[in-house]
Amino acid sequence: MGIISSRHNALVKRIRMAIREHAQEIVVEGPKAVADAIAGGWKPIAVVERDVDVSGEVFDALTETRHPQSVIGLFERPRGDAAAILARRDTVAIALDAVQDPGNVGTIVRLAAAFDVAGVLLLPGCADPFAPKAIRASAGAILNVPIAEITLAELLMTSPKLLATAMSGAVIDPPPRDAILVFGNEGAGVSRELLDAATLIAIPMSARVESLNVASSAAILLARSYDARSRTTDN
Amino acid sequence: MGIISSRHNALVKRIRMAIREHAQEIVVEGPKAVADAIAGGWKPIAVVERDVDVSGEVFDALTETRHPQSVIGLFERPRGDAAAILARRDTVAIALDAVQDPGNVGTIVRLAAAFDVAGVLLLPGCADPFAPKAIRASAGAILNVPIAEITLAELLMTSPKLLATAMSGAVIDPPPRDAILVFGNEGAGVSRELLDAATLIAIPMSARVESLNVASSAAILLARSYDARSRTTDN
Repeated sequence: MGIISSRHNALVKRIRMAIREHAQEIVVEGPKAVADAIAGGWKPIAVVERDVDVSGEVFDALTETRHPQSVIGLFERPRGDAAAILARRDTVAIALDAVQDPGNVGTIVRLAAAFDVAGVLLLPGCADPFAPKAIRASAGAILNVPIAEITLAELLMTSPKLLATAMSGAVIDPPPRDAILVFGNEGAGVSRELLDAATLIAIPMSARVESLNVASSAAILLARSYDARSRTTDN
Repeated sequence: MGIISSRHNALVKRIRMAIREHAQEIVVEGPKAVADAIAGGWKPIAVVERDVDVSGEVFDALTETRHPQSVIGLFERPRGDAAAILARRDTVAIALDAVQDPGNVGTIVRLAAAFDVAGVLLLPGCADPFAPKAIRASAGAILNVPIAEITLAELLMTSPKLLATAMSGAVIDPPPRDAILVFGNEGAGVSRELLDAATLIAIPMSARVESLNVASSAAILLARSYDARSRTTDN
């Protein structure tokens, strides 16, 4: 097979569709990122190199970054297993409730890797963790954090303790290891149904602000949970 | 004076310039935000209301947001006093070293308000805390956190202890109250000269990530410092 030099080539159209929609298939740009994704167990559908598999002109028209990389990988969207995330009791899990900003979702994925979280459960209304902005904010952590979608009903049926951040909550420091930490929408916070089912946990702070950014709240609670585990392990 | 209906009006041009350059004069959009800024002690140069002071057509052409507000305030750029920030010993201060993303700068300003930080010192190379994206990320906290520029030489001459986050640092929990917490550039971290002068402080985390987002690091260390103060006050 020769070099692809037509924008109407089936694989080129499929990659372009994946970049636009990042639905069942997602795209990773750059030789290092593509290699990391394969090493991380993502399933490649195709890997194309500029000037080798695809002509420079067609390749450059594909990429959405200003400084196009030389390699693009087309991957199956990784699907985490919510049950496997929930089955772990040795560390906390995270549930995101309509967290809309992809930067926040990606930052929380990075925090999940940093603090050995079991995984990130996405309730409806969240930004796509595989959107380019979220992948960048995760700084590579998207590759090794289990991420799975979950419905509100499924989450409410789980046995682990739900802990939701709220100004009116109690100071629970550290959060228990078998908890699911629920973080809510940037404006509206955690939804009413989840608040009713959860234990409310507060982060002590000045009355000068109404709330913290959702990723800041996650950073503080996850670090506390991780520190408590380190202390236990040390003893 | 009648309603301004020309785009070439001197005040209209001055507001447009301030929106574009946010240099000596900055613009705040929205009646609540403008009222808050005045209440917060910012010095208004002019406040214009749509259809009252400025015609709808000219007003709408001014604003950069997609859903234009009905009021625009033109303000003198607030100038914090670095010496006053450094003089406080009852709480930590923050120094940012070439933190480039305005979202990170604004999020850190919000954290500074939440955890009663003395103020935010900006070394060269930082994003403008009064840029629209930074103001939005601060969620209103920009109005009540002292912010001042400082040079590296000035910072190095200060007596309070400089603490810089670095993976190789020691776990110092909580950070001492009279410290200046230094946070560095998103890619390069804290500059070599500052690292050499500072005590290095680490946040315990998994080896799965190389680092945290700078605002996440700030959230964790500031919450620890605030908690320690709360405990002291309680006793």
